[in-house]
Amino acid sequence: QCDLTGWWENELGSKMHVSEVDSQGNFSGEYHTAVSSAQKPIEPSPLLGSQHLDEDGQCTFGFTVNWKFSDSTAVFVGQCFAGESGEEVLQSTWLLREKVDSLPSDWKATR
Amino acid sequence: QCDLTGWWENELGSKMHVSEVDSQGNFSGEYHTAVSSAQKPIEPSPLLGSQHLDEDGQCTFGFTVNWKFSDSTAVFVGQCFAGESGEEVLQSTWLLREKVDSLPSDWKATR
Amino acid sequence: QCDLTGWWENELGSKMHVSEVDSQGNFSGEYHTAVSSAQKPIEPSPLLGSQHLDEDGQCTFGFTVNWKFSDSTAVFVGQCFAGESGEEVLQSTWLLREKVDSLPSDWKATR
Amino acid sequence: QCDLTGWWENELGSKMHVSEVDSQGNFSGEYHTAVSSAQKPIEPSPLLGSQHLDEDGQCTFGFTVNWKFSDSTAVFVGQCFAGESGEEVLQSTWLLREKVDSLPSDWKATR
Repeated sequence: QCDLTGWWENELGSKMHVSEVDSQGNFSGEYHTAVSSAQKPIEPSPLLGSQHLDEDGQCTFGFTVNWKFSDSTAVFVGQCFAGESGEEVLQSTWLLREKVDSLPSDWKATR
Repeated sequence: QCDLTGWWENELGSKMHVSEVDSQGNFSGEYHTAVSSAQKPIEPSPLLGSQHLDEDGQCTFGFTVNWKFSDSTAVFVGQCFAGESGEEVLQSTWLLREKVDSLPSDWKATR
Repeated sequence: QCDLTGWWENELGSKMHVSEVDSQGNFSGEYHTAVSSAQKPIEPSPLLGSQHLDEDGQCTFGFTVNWKFSDSTAVFVGQCFAGESGEEVLQSTWLLREKVDSLPSDWKATR
Repeated sequence: QCDLTGWWENELGSKMHVSEVDSQGNFSGEYHTAVSSAQKPIEPSPLLGSQHLDEDGQCTFGFTVNWKFSDSTAVFVGQCFAGESGEEVLQSTWLLREKVDSLPSDWKATR
């Protein structure tokens, strides 16, 4: 069964720690990004999300990262895959929303 | 100041209710989608997210929706804009992750 | 039947002109963007794309814009809808790729 | 200098052939996808795009694929990176637009 609890690392070197997943599938944790488009120094930032509690170990999940060093927010969404040798692999994509001054700049706020 | 608490409706007719935002910026709520690509009937589904607590009322935010009627998860990310007449407008984009059988199908899982 | 030939304008005030669509569905034209994240002044830029030649007037299409004033490239993909009163409406989304210095910056290059 | 002419293969096994790039940066070619969400058998499909002609060999590019076996269109946008040993690597992202019946289904048409 899929369990997001623990440490995960992606191919860019970013790491995240997910605390215990509760009975609703909700979890919190901390995201340590290795990359940033902000000017302030990187700091670990809190994450909050939820996962499906499917029985086959291949749940989808999503979470929000509330960046502590930047007026921006990221969301990640993905799926947990059970690998051949029993290890779990997360496949995810993300959107990063940067704060913009006004509505006319909204078109460029998300990458 | 930006306050996500309350009811919001988008241009597709989907509605969401955000409960009280806590001192960390975290919030929970319920998403009532008007559209679905799933085969089961639509049900209200829980959402969980967080927002920046900026002082200018134009905070970025993100949240995860854990669909109750579908093996999929959505994330939304956006920004709250203060309109001219004092009303708030949310601009957001989203990703929908649908569960796929195996890694070779991962490429098509997100829309 | 869907015919992209002519002038189109979007909600941001950007305009594009599509020249004649050939028998393969290929077309060229010029994109006059109203918004930019580049520092140089905006210039009209060439576009090149193709559309399906379906019989029901609701074709999908895509095109590339080769920005003349910026080391970046945009792609648009969408569908032509026949409105009730006979007019055509284009619904499209886009990706903007900005040039980055090296592979480690690749993660932030697309919005 | 970046030259897209030739055969390229991605990590999913899809291959594309780019014919000669003209003096404007425009090119045509053929895309042989290894994956599909359509029901008909896969067929090689024409592509049409353009690239920047930068001098540093790290140009951005975009192209449209007009699928022959499906009422859908894909666009790709990316950048060519010059690797350490002289080989070129393409980094790209894509959007796939599938034809939908009507405007209310537009929200789910792109992945």
